[in-house]
Amino acid sequence: MKDYILNEDRFFDPDTSVRKIARELYNEIKNLPIISPHGHVDPKIFVTNEPFPDPSELFLIPDHYIFRMLYSQGIPLESLGIPDKEGSRKVVDSKKIWQLFADNYFLFAGTPSGVWLDYEFSVVFGIKEKLNSTNASIIHDEIKEKLNSPEFLPRALFDRFNIEVLSTTDAATDSLLEHRQIKESGWNARIIPCFRPDALTNLSDPNWKLHLKNLGSLTGSEITSYKGYLTAIEKRREYFKKHGAVSTDHGVLSPYTRKMHITEAEKLFQKALNGDITVDDTNLFTANMLMEMSRMSTEDGLVMQIHPGSFRNHNQVIYDKFGLDKGCDIPMRTEFTQNLQVLLNEYGNDPRLTIIVFTLDETNYSRELAPLAGHYPSMKLGPAWWFHDSIEGMARFRHQVTETAGFYNTVGFNDDTRAFVSIPARHDVARRVDSNYLAGQVAKHIISLEDARMISYQLTYGLVKKAYKL
Amino acid sequence: MKDYILNEDRFFDPDTSVRKIARELYNEIKNLPIISPHGHVDPKIFVTNEPFPDPSELFLIPDHYIFRMLYSQGIPLESLGIPDKEGSRKVVDSKKIWQLFADNYFLFAGTPSGVWLDYEFSVVFGIKEKLNSTNASIIHDEIKEKLNSPEFLPRALFDRFNIEVLSTTDAATDSLLEHRQIKESGWNARIIPCFRPDALTNLSDPNWKLHLKNLGSLTGSEITSYKGYLTAIEKRREYFKKHGAVSTDHGVLSPYTRKMHITEAEKLFQKALNGDITVDDTNLFTANMLMEMSRMSTEDGLVMQIHPGSFRNHNQVIYDKFGLDKGCDIPMRTEFTQNLQVLLNEYGNDPRLTIIVFTLDETNYSRELAPLAGHYPSMKLGPAWWFHDSIEGMARFRHQVTETAGFYNTVGFNDDTRAFVSIPARHDVARRVDSNYLAGQVAKHIISLEDARMISYQLTYGLVKKAYKL
Amino acid sequence: MKDYILNEDRFFDPDTSVRKIARELYNEIKNLPIISPHGHVDPKIFVTNEPFPDPSELFLIPDHYIFRMLYSQGIPLESLGIPDKEGSRKVVDSKKIWQLFADNYFLFAGTPSGVWLDYEFSVVFGIKEKLNSTNASIIHDEIKEKLNSPEFLPRALFDRFNIEVLSTTDAATDSLLEHRQIKESGWNARIIPCFRPDALTNLSDPNWKLHLKNLGSLTGSEITSYKGYLTAIEKRREYFKKHGAVSTDHGVLSPYTRKMHITEAEKLFQKALNGDITVDDTNLFTANMLMEMSRMSTEDGLVMQIHPGSFRNHNQVIYDKFGLDKGCDIPMRTEFTQNLQVLLNEYGNDPRLTIIVFTLDETNYSRELAPLAGHYPSMKLGPAWWFHDSIEGMARFRHQVTETAGFYNTVGFNDDTRAFVSIPARHDVARRVDSNYLAGQVAKHIISLEDARMISYQLTYGLVKKAYKL
Repeated sequence: MKDYILNEDRFFDPDTSVRKIARELYNEIKNLPIISPHGHVDPKIFVTNEPFPDPSELFLIPDHYIFRMLYSQGIPLESLGIPDKEGSRKVVDSKKIWQLFADNYFLFAGTPSGVWLDYEFSVVFGIKEKLNSTNASIIHDEIKEKLNSPEFLPRALFDRFNIEVLSTTDAATDSLLEHRQIKESGWNARIIPCFRPDALTNLSDPNWKLHLKNLGSLTGSEITSYKGYLTAIEKRREYFKKHGAVSTDHGVLSPYTRKMHITEAEKLFQKALNGDITVDDTNLFTANMLMEMSRMSTEDGLVMQIHPGSFRNHNQVIYDKFGLDKGCDIPMRTEFTQNLQVLLNEYGNDPRLTIIVFTLDETNYSRELAPLAGHYPSMKLGPAWWFHDSIEGMARFRHQVTETAGFYNTVGFNDDTRAFVSIPARHDVARRVDSNYLAGQVAKHIISLEDARMISYQLTYGLVKKAYKL
Repeated sequence: MKDYILNEDRFFDPDTSVRKIARELYNEIKNLPIISPHGHVDPKIFVTNEPFPDPSELFLIPDHYIFRMLYSQGIPLESLGIPDKEGSRKVVDSKKIWQLFADNYFLFAGTPSGVWLDYEFSVVFGIKEKLNSTNASIIHDEIKEKLNSPEFLPRALFDRFNIEVLSTTDAATDSLLEHRQIKESGWNARIIPCFRPDALTNLSDPNWKLHLKNLGSLTGSEITSYKGYLTAIEKRREYFKKHGAVSTDHGVLSPYTRKMHITEAEKLFQKALNGDITVDDTNLFTANMLMEMSRMSTEDGLVMQIHPGSFRNHNQVIYDKFGLDKGCDIPMRTEFTQNLQVLLNEYGNDPRLTIIVFTLDETNYSRELAPLAGHYPSMKLGPAWWFHDSIEGMARFRHQVTETAGFYNTVGFNDDTRAFVSIPARHDVARRVDSNYLAGQVAKHIISLEDARMISYQLTYGLVKKAYKL
Repeated sequence: MKDYILNEDRFFDPDTSVRKIARELYNEIKNLPIISPHGHVDPKIFVTNEPFPDPSELFLIPDHYIFRMLYSQGIPLESLGIPDKEGSRKVVDSKKIWQLFADNYFLFAGTPSGVWLDYEFSVVFGIKEKLNSTNASIIHDEIKEKLNSPEFLPRALFDRFNIEVLSTTDAATDSLLEHRQIKESGWNARIIPCFRPDALTNLSDPNWKLHLKNLGSLTGSEITSYKGYLTAIEKRREYFKKHGAVSTDHGVLSPYTRKMHITEAEKLFQKALNGDITVDDTNLFTANMLMEMSRMSTEDGLVMQIHPGSFRNHNQVIYDKFGLDKGCDIPMRTEFTQNLQVLLNEYGNDPRLTIIVFTLDETNYSRELAPLAGHYPSMKLGPAWWFHDSIEGMARFRHQVTETAGFYNTVGFNDDTRAFVSIPARHDVARRVDSNYLAGQVAKHIISLEDARMISYQLTYGLVKKAYKL
């Protein structure tokens, strides 16, 4: 077993001329602060600032990238300590779970999870050996011990990770209690919320009326009309802004947009209140709400993020037993050119608006997204997302987007993660992949080294701050 | 004319650091036995074990990869000796055909056919020059002479190729006579059938009722009901299993799956018996039969292969004159996420089942197939298929699949070929491409050399044996 | 500021073994004459042969690749001197526009526009520094001065660019006056028209009846029937042929083809004359006209070009203000296998016909287009087009097309440009990318250097002349 030291040139092109430039570019930006404008870290960990319970709880149980891979190879979720949808679970022996994970660690070879875990073990926790069946128990104890030390408390890690801004993602009806508590605690980290109204705009959500009721309570009056509903949403946006939010987030099945006449919308809203809606109604209403959200963004300045194309909870068996976010969300083919046309015609030329669009369907990079972002002033391209937040995925993004959209219609990296400890690992991969891409451009004499340096800074730090108005 | 010696480092990355590792990995696995779990070699050649008739008959006439390319450049199929659909043909002068082939051999530059032919000529037949107009006649005679020697008889080649298992593909109503004859001959090669019931499950097949009648004869009673039909199919599967089959094979237009109620299915079956069905009926019935086949596989353990997305016989003019498999099958866009959902929900979590899915639509590698295989325990990804069984095609497969599905949700290589003599050439390309891919990962410090070695063995030998239960 | 000398090895693979071969191949073909069989240069510039007015007018205002990028970053088109659709404009200060362009020149890093401009400035105009805010004014004056010298007159540049054939693109009702004037001037450059009947075949064109009237005037009788319409089109094709045309050009939303019965077509034509048509009618009629155009091509030998998949004038706001071709045409997903089947079944086997197909949807390269072109004798693949006429785009084309279609079912490069001065830059990029692709094949021992040399000549010069019958 060789020492587990990450190679300094990892992920760079093997060609020495490219590698040399990549290393040079990377060294200039590797220590820039992390801007994390989109993610799913639970803010509560920074309120309590208590030690993470144990290695399995930290690395495995909250990370569906990891346990879906184990599941795909026949390992039951129960045996990994994944709680069922009521929150209870059979196996709670962290060490036993960890052993199972270690026994199957070879499955992650060549995957981004493998790359991130290597970084977390080696760089964050200083583990000296690669995890395997034999050393599982020792490594478990080593990590567990560290987790109990002051340097591994959430706030200490936040500082050590050099995070300048961290955005969480929060339901529109969230009280933002934790965000307030963090602020009131006097700890001066910038942890901001992001306004995600999906549960309110998706009429097919089984709990839609419940969410609506919460919205009413929070904004001070029962929601009985579409107009009242819009006003309440506007109030909540204002509330989020006051708590530091700079953006909204919209997860939709398709990026279909269509403006409904107010009367038409009101009628549909009443139908929804009466629980009497069709699939077409739902799609139309979501399409209309993307329009309304764009309008509100032109007014209040919140940056709008749209990420369509995930077939959520594809595996009903797992969903029924374990609930949401269990690695069963599968990408679907997505269409942007026609779907976004109504929105872009109405708001795409408006200088007040920034719309950041993500995709799980890479075929759109060169065909639809780069041409759209390379024309409409309001539209920018979000980074390679989810399954594509990987060495190859991020490289494909640059290779397929840059020639048409350039660099300046993209918005830097975001980690989109629930796994707090993986944040520096993910940003490091992005910085390496971009450095390597730019180095290739320099080595092929497409851009100069001087240009590459400027762009490198922009991709790491400048563009994300500008796009998200940070 | 330079000597026609294949370069030892062919298909490896030109970068010396990658090439060195690729060579090392390749050398460790290049001599492993060939497992060919899916293909179309005619088993009769091993029964009679007679010499292949002549070079044109061996290389050109059965290989639609080759004559479609010649046809695309304006060379009539008649002039290549391709028999019409009644089996008769005008040109039968092997040497004249061979000359025409040689005159146009330059068309295959950069194609997998070119690469395979180079290997077959050079390695299998020891030809010392590249085929061209001038040497065509000499090479023709040289090959023809060799074909008549004992070392070039089918069984001798089978042994020389180091084939451990060869699966043919056989109609559900095939008697498997040849498989029995091979076994009874005492020659102990493992040549196994694969159960392909398409002609029985595709109601739009003009000969469906004829196939049904054959099914009845083979299973001992006339098929008059859906229930009887299912029972007869189950019997045939059992028969195939007894003759060594480990898998079934399903070529469908789309991977649409849907479970019909037994009454509904029975009704539709009766309509089909009366010849009174619509396109929708046909699609629905095929969708339903994929469900039934999955169920049967959970019961009898046969591995299920699904390969959708080919528009068969696109060129009606050629089809009317020459029949099936004349290079006129054109890929279509294919959708998996929604289409396979019903099947995967019903059987995708069942540890008894293995479903191997192929695609002609590469856009699905990263978008749909890798995420599905990276979650569902039953589903595995078949290798790059047909048009994509090529140097670039196989590389794209690894680059687009690995990060989400890992290596262990793939199933090694299969050659899927009618051209027996091309089998070692094809497996050699696959081994080289995989070695090179892994070498790139090592050179970029994504995986260690140690890991690469283990994975290399798995991709060449381990995974295919496991997936196909060999 | 370093000297602005383009590197001799630009765009070649950094690996020295590949680069060496690429350079060798490139040097052999770099000085071959330019064949430009498809483009949009205004022939009038060669009639008058007057100096180009000024740098902004030459580089920026006619080039929607450039100003759409500036617009995407919030720069109003008005400030760039783009005329509105009536042709009037606010800003006409060339130097002010040029300064704005220079201030934002960094936006083009990594884009083909950037690469072409670098070439034009450096090679065509001998500018010694890269354009930036500081040197904008000086460079403006330097270019302006040159434009007034005899060596920079359009005809002088045409000769200097070593253009053997230049095809323009012309409405079917164009008088071809300029083409005649060029010929009559005694200047012996081969500048030929291309027959583009879209305005006549697209029933949804708001000016369709006006175009029809023009067609009638030009062919000597009012068009009152479908039959008369076809005859008039045939006459115009004949007229174009007499003026040197070798091809027709068809821009369609989708490549849908369908043959209408003559009675059905006549009926629809009458409906269109009465202004009473639906979207379905329009689509059907276009589908039918692709069939008619194929038939005519089998008769008169004009090569047929089909380029589908652009959603024209996506941004209605810009279209209403500035009109066509303002960088708002966005690609759409396109389907070929089913759409082209009717046409290919009727004419795809006809040796008299050549159909060159382009796509904006790269997913079709390996899935549909290469398999179709690799089978049908009539069908060839046009080069990487529009957004994909770039270093990466052209490389993707070769990587995804060659293995199935080979090299000989492609037709060389075309520049498709309005920007006359960019022609040598564009052809140079294509020659470099192809040289590099071939060098990679040689370095990987897929093809021999000898083969690569022959193919390189074909890709640059041989195939385009053959395909367009030049």
